[in-house]
Amino acid sequence: MSVRFERLHVDAGTRARRGRLHTPHGTVETPVFMPVGTQATVKAVGQDDLRTLGAEILLGNTYHLMLRPGEELVGALGGLHRFMAWDRALLTDSGGFQVYSLAQNRKITEEGASFQSHLDGSRWMLTPERSIQIQEVLGADVIMAFDECAPSRSERRYMEESLARTTRWLHRCAAAWTRGRSALFGIVQGGLDLELRRRHVEEVCAVELPGYALGGYSVGERPEEMHASVADVAVLLPADRPRYLMGVGTPVDLVTAMAAGVDMFDCVLPTRCARNGLLFTHLGRLNLRNATHARDERAPDPECGCYTCRTHSRAYLRHLFAADELLALRLATLHNLHHYLELMRGARAAIEEDRYAAFAEDVRRRESGRAPSG
Amino acid sequence: MSVRFERLHVDAGTRARRGRLHTPHGTVETPVFMPVGTQATVKAVGQDDLRTLGAEILLGNTYHLMLRPGEELVGALGGLHRFMAWDRALLTDSGGFQVYSLAQNRKITEEGASFQSHLDGSRWMLTPERSIQIQEVLGADVIMAFDECAPSRSERRYMEESLARTTRWLHRCAAAWTRGRSALFGIVQGGLDLELRRRHVEEVCAVELPGYALGGYSVGERPEEMHASVADVAVLLPADRPRYLMGVGTPVDLVTAMAAGVDMFDCVLPTRCARNGLLFTHLGRLNLRNATHARDERAPDPECGCYTCRTHSRAYLRHLFAADELLALRLATLHNLHHYLELMRGARAAIEEDRYAAFAEDVRRRESGRAPSG
Repeated sequence: MSVRFERLHVDAGTRARRGRLHTPHGTVETPVFMPVGTQATVKAVGQDDLRTLGAEILLGNTYHLMLRPGEELVGALGGLHRFMAWDRALLTDSGGFQVYSLAQNRKITEEGASFQSHLDGSRWMLTPERSIQIQEVLGADVIMAFDECAPSRSERRYMEESLARTTRWLHRCAAAWTRGRSALFGIVQGGLDLELRRRHVEEVCAVELPGYALGGYSVGERPEEMHASVADVAVLLPADRPRYLMGVGTPVDLVTAMAAGVDMFDCVLPTRCARNGLLFTHLGRLNLRNATHARDERAPDPECGCYTCRTHSRAYLRHLFAADELLALRLATLHNLHHYLELMRGARAAIEEDRYAAFAEDVRRRESGRAPSG
Repeated sequence: MSVRFERLHVDAGTRARRGRLHTPHGTVETPVFMPVGTQATVKAVGQDDLRTLGAEILLGNTYHLMLRPGEELVGALGGLHRFMAWDRALLTDSGGFQVYSLAQNRKITEEGASFQSHLDGSRWMLTPERSIQIQEVLGADVIMAFDECAPSRSERRYMEESLARTTRWLHRCAAAWTRGRSALFGIVQGGLDLELRRRHVEEVCAVELPGYALGGYSVGERPEEMHASVADVAVLLPADRPRYLMGVGTPVDLVTAMAAGVDMFDCVLPTRCARNGLLFTHLGRLNLRNATHARDERAPDPECGCYTCRTHSRAYLRHLFAADELLALRLATLHNLHHYLELMRGARAAIEEDRYAAFAEDVRRRESGRAPSG
């Protein structure tokens, strides 16, 4: 298989793992946070910015790209890497989560999921075979199995049916998977029920794949519930394969899940919060729209080395947000992505030096604080 | 005076001038196009982008900045250069044009202009003294006299009264001007009437100032009318001072006015058009929203060396505009500003080599074309 996971070290005091994901588009140091590039672009920043930030892998959304511009067009233009001019690694999700979170009038059958586009109400169908086909045409380095993300508060009977179907879908995905340069990852569901999760881990990991993911988290449960469940479940996944916690989360979620042995993350939180003026800083969260910043000459995060913090004051950023200026969105996004990627760099160094627990505790303490005048 | 204009060469075949404007924030090679940074930011691009593009001077708007965040705040934070983290040259306009184009319920008296803010309807007053005071607090390298931009189709009697008042206001501006590091430029009005323009040139240039501007163009008249009037009037301005044609224009407007001896320009056209998906290219205008570009792998402008054209295809840009992605706005703005700044670099080289007429003719021919599949 063309994607290979190399385990470098396990932290002495936790289960946190230092590794490398070797892909056809370069090496990804893990644990890694993947910025979300839903529509073949990470909102508000350029591919030049992402290179400068040190991003080694981005996520693209199959659901969005199949609707617009359509995978056939992207494929005809040489695939997603070439279409968006990104020569580092890419991962695409399967569309399963957006069918659950975004599409309208969805109907799940054994065949697949039928739904209406959130853009124009047109009727679409995703099946395991179709999702894999689309992802192979897009040509990402990592592609995801098509699953159902059942609401975590579903009745147990529905959840069991859904898990069995997702397992059958996984076998169909594996059978449909033909492209060696796109590594297929399986997805474990099961909500917050440990027994269901255990059973699904066994079913999913019975299919030999280059990596495995945990889905169905960060969908409304309390953070403590998610942290406890991830700690119980991550350890059940094969130690020699990368573990990807999908759609998670806050900095505290990340450091907690890394301690449980998770290697990969993606989340819209840093980019979406940035566009709302909310920055993650070394001293907690900072709302740039707040009038208290109007005359504050300090950098948004004085401990941060990103372009935004090296160049601009809170007062200027507050002005840009108050005046609805586009530059505000890019500057805030640059900062939040830098904060997340720097957090991962710090975590990787801490694991290598067997001091991950202290690192994680420091992050928890800082992130729970409030920035001065925040 | 701290701003000094150095004449280097006059083209052998036209009146086009090659010069340098020495300012407290660096040297500006002229003829120059100044990107418009209305609210202390050039819309959709960063100060890093503007440096990379080679911009040597930006324009800020007194009207917008006095309303938000207020000049007092900008002054308390060290002035506009420091506030927006731009260490190259800045020019601020006087607010006179926005009172005419943007404010509501304006009332012009001998004292000044009273108007309502376009933001919240609050009542404001700008006088010659107040405009100069605000601009000195903002601290730009070039500041503009407070004038009335009377509608070009005004009755002659109103126009004459307005010009006489603008002359009296100019004397008040000159008397109020105290800051050596901000060079005050006078503004000639008079619409399309050559006799009125001549008379106003005499009145304005009777006040010894570091530079002079032509206002009241590009306000609805036909381009040919404007070109003819500028050709008649620019030559009347002192040859040893920079000549600034305010709010102009298209590439053809620029090359035509340069042939008449104009040295400085500003216009929102390249940035505003970019945000609407309209690119200026070597082969004419290109509308990126056009469906014909959906599968076009070519650079927006194959002859262009900007980041956008070096990196991305028409197909990708068309997708970004169709998907309402923020990156579209930055990439299009980068291209259009590069196109304008490159046009000015080409013009400066052509003047130095006494081949300006051929250069201008080439630009006219190219710009009037339509890009392939445009």
